[in-house]
Amino acid sequence: MTINSYEIDAQESPAAHVIGADIGGTNLRLALADGAGAMLGRWSTSTVGARNAEAVVRLMREGVDRLLLEASLPQNALRAIACGAPGITNVDSGTVIATSYLMGWQDVPLRALLEAEFKVPAAVDNDVNLAAIGEHNAGVAQGQGNFVFLAIGTGIGAGIVVNGKIHHGSVWTAGEIGYMLVPGTSEAPVKRGEPGALEAIAGGEGIRNQWQKRWRADLTTLGKDAIATEIFDQALKSDVLAQEVLQVAGRILAYAIYNISLILNSPLFVLGGSVGIHPALGDAIRQVLEQRRDCVQPTLVRSALGVDAQLVGAICLAIETANKKYASPGS
Amino acid sequence: MTINSYEIDAQESPAAHVIGADIGGTNLRLALADGAGAMLGRWSTSTVGARNAEAVVRLMREGVDRLLLEASLPQNALRAIACGAPGITNVDSGTVIATSYLMGWQDVPLRALLEAEFKVPAAVDNDVNLAAIGEHNAGVAQGQGNFVFLAIGTGIGAGIVVNGKIHHGSVWTAGEIGYMLVPGTSEAPVKRGEPGALEAIAGGEGIRNQWQKRWRADLTTLGKDAIATEIFDQALKSDVLAQEVLQVAGRILAYAIYNISLILNSPLFVLGGSVGIHPALGDAIRQVLEQRRDCVQPTLVRSALGVDAQLVGAICLAIETANKKYASPGS
Repeated sequence: MTINSYEIDAQESPAAHVIGADIGGTNLRLALADGAGAMLGRWSTSTVGARNAEAVVRLMREGVDRLLLEASLPQNALRAIACGAPGITNVDSGTVIATSYLMGWQDVPLRALLEAEFKVPAAVDNDVNLAAIGEHNAGVAQGQGNFVFLAIGTGIGAGIVVNGKIHHGSVWTAGEIGYMLVPGTSEAPVKRGEPGALEAIAGGEGIRNQWQKRWRADLTTLGKDAIATEIFDQALKSDVLAQEVLQVAGRILAYAIYNISLILNSPLFVLGGSVGIHPALGDAIRQVLEQRRDCVQPTLVRSALGVDAQLVGAICLAIETANKKYASPGS
Repeated sequence: MTINSYEIDAQESPAAHVIGADIGGTNLRLALADGAGAMLGRWSTSTVGARNAEAVVRLMREGVDRLLLEASLPQNALRAIACGAPGITNVDSGTVIATSYLMGWQDVPLRALLEAEFKVPAAVDNDVNLAAIGEHNAGVAQGQGNFVFLAIGTGIGAGIVVNGKIHHGSVWTAGEIGYMLVPGTSEAPVKRGEPGALEAIAGGEGIRNQWQKRWRADLTTLGKDAIATEIFDQALKSDVLAQEVLQVAGRILAYAIYNISLILNSPLFVLGGSVGIHPALGDAIRQVLEQRRDCVQPTLVRSALGVDAQLVGAICLAIETANKKYASPGS
C-alpha cells in the first residue's frame, strides 16, 4: 500500500525508511515502510506482562531490529518513528497523559523514550487519531477535509478532522465520545479511565454485556460468552435475541453520530475498529439515521484500512516527522 | 464600545462607517458604527407583518437612512453592511438557506438584496455565529481561539469557533444543537424547522411548556403563563416548582455542553441569549457539570455583550467586509 500525499524527499534521503507503531491494549504492532509509505514488513507481539513504557520500547527495539534485518537495511536507513498510544496524548510534548485502566500509563514521555532508543525523530498521537490520518491519506477519506473516524472496538473513540487537520482540543481530549450521553445510556457520572456511558452499551464489551443480560439457552443457539462480532454474525442469521442486541447498539451509535453531525456538520463518518467494521452494525446505524435525514445527512462508510488504519496513520506521521526534521533550511 | 481587532484602515477610508444588522424572529435591529467599531447609533423595529426578505430590506433602508441622518453622515460614508439571519446561512453565496417556521425563508439571496439596495459590499451569517464573533472580538472570548457560544432564547443554537474561525460545516448547519439527543429528551424524529428535542425542554418555549405541565395554583405564587426568565427569578425565591423546572433545564443543557466538550474539548462556553444569560441557569448547569469534572472541565461564562452580541458581531463582519473589498491591490 502506497500513501499518496506523504513522501520523504528522495533526493534529500535516498535510503529513507520509517517505522509506524501501534500500542494496543494487548498487542504491539510495527510496520516498516519506505519513504513513499509502501509497507515492507510487519511485526507484532503481545504486551501482556510488558506494559510499562520502558518494557514496550524494549519490545519495539526487538521488532525494529528484526524488520530492518529482514529487509536487509542498515540501522541508519531508519529516519523516523511514529507511534499510536491508546489514550490521551499531548502531541506537542510527546507525552501520553493517560491511558485506560488496561495500561494505566500516566504522563509517560513516550516520544523522548523513542528518540533515546532509536536515535531518530519520533512522534506520538492517540491511536484513533492515527487511524483517521491513515484513512485520510490512504483510505476512504482521501480528499475529505472534514470527517470523523469512529473507532468501535472494546471501547469507542473518535478522530475528528477539521479543515484537513486532526482536532485535538485544548487539553488533548477531543473525540473522547465513549463518555457521551444519549437517550438509553446511564446518567451516572463515571471516572476517566472507566468505561463511558456510550461504550458501556455500544462498545465491544458493552455489546457482550447486553448479550449476557438477555441471554437464555432456549432463546438462541449462540453461546452466552459470544463476542460482539459473533453476535452480529448471528443477527444476520435472523436470531431474534442477537438482532435485539444489534438494534440497541445501532440506535445508541446512531444517536451519537447524529449529535456529532448536529455540532460539526461533518459530511463523512468512517466506521472503524474491530466491531465498527462489521457490516450489520453499519446497516443498523444507517436505519436509525435515515429517520432523521431531515436534520442531518452524514455519509457512513466502512474503514478501507480496517485494523491497519492506525499503522498506516503511524507511517504517515513518521514520514511527516522525517521530512520536518530532515528538511534543509529554506527547502 | 470599541472593537479591538477589527478596524477600517483610516488612510484608505477616512470617513468609513458600517451597518451591523440582526434579523430576529420578531424584531429587526440595526447599529451604525465607525471604522473602529464604535457604535454611533441604534435603530430597531418590529418585523411582524413584514417578514419576506424584500420587506425586511425596505425596513433596513428606512433604518439606515435614519441612522445616517442622525449622525449627520452622507450616504457615501457607508462602506459595508453585515446582517445576521435566524437560520442556516451559506456565507459563501450570501444565501439564507432556511429559517425556522417563524420566518419561513427558503434560499433567500440576502447578500445580493442588500448589495442592490445599499450599493456597498454586504455579508451575511447565521445570527448565533455573529454573536460568537461579537464575543470573540469585544466580549468574554477575546483571545480564545476555541470556544462555543450557546444562544438560549426561544430555541437553542451554538456558534462554534475552532482555531479562531467560525466552524460552519459542510452544508452550513454546524451548531444546530437544538436538535441534540440527551437522556431526558424525546427520541421522536422531528423535521428541520420544528423545535428540536433539546430546545423542546430547555429552550425558552420548552421551559414554559415544562412549567405549564407542572403548574398548579396551590403549588406556586407565579402565574401559569410565566416566561422562562420569570420562572428562574421565582426559583431564586425558593419556589419549589420553579426550582424543579430550572433543574430540568439545567441538567439537559449540562448534558449538551458535556457532549460538545467530549467531542471538541473546547475550553470555554459562553452562555448567551435572553434565557441563557440568566444567572440561575448558569449555576444550575455548573452544578451538573461539576459531577462530571473527571471527564470534562469546560469554563462557563455569561455573555458580556448580552442581547447585543449579534449586533456587535455584525459590525465586526461589516468592517472585515469593508476592508476586504476596499483593500488596495498589494496592500
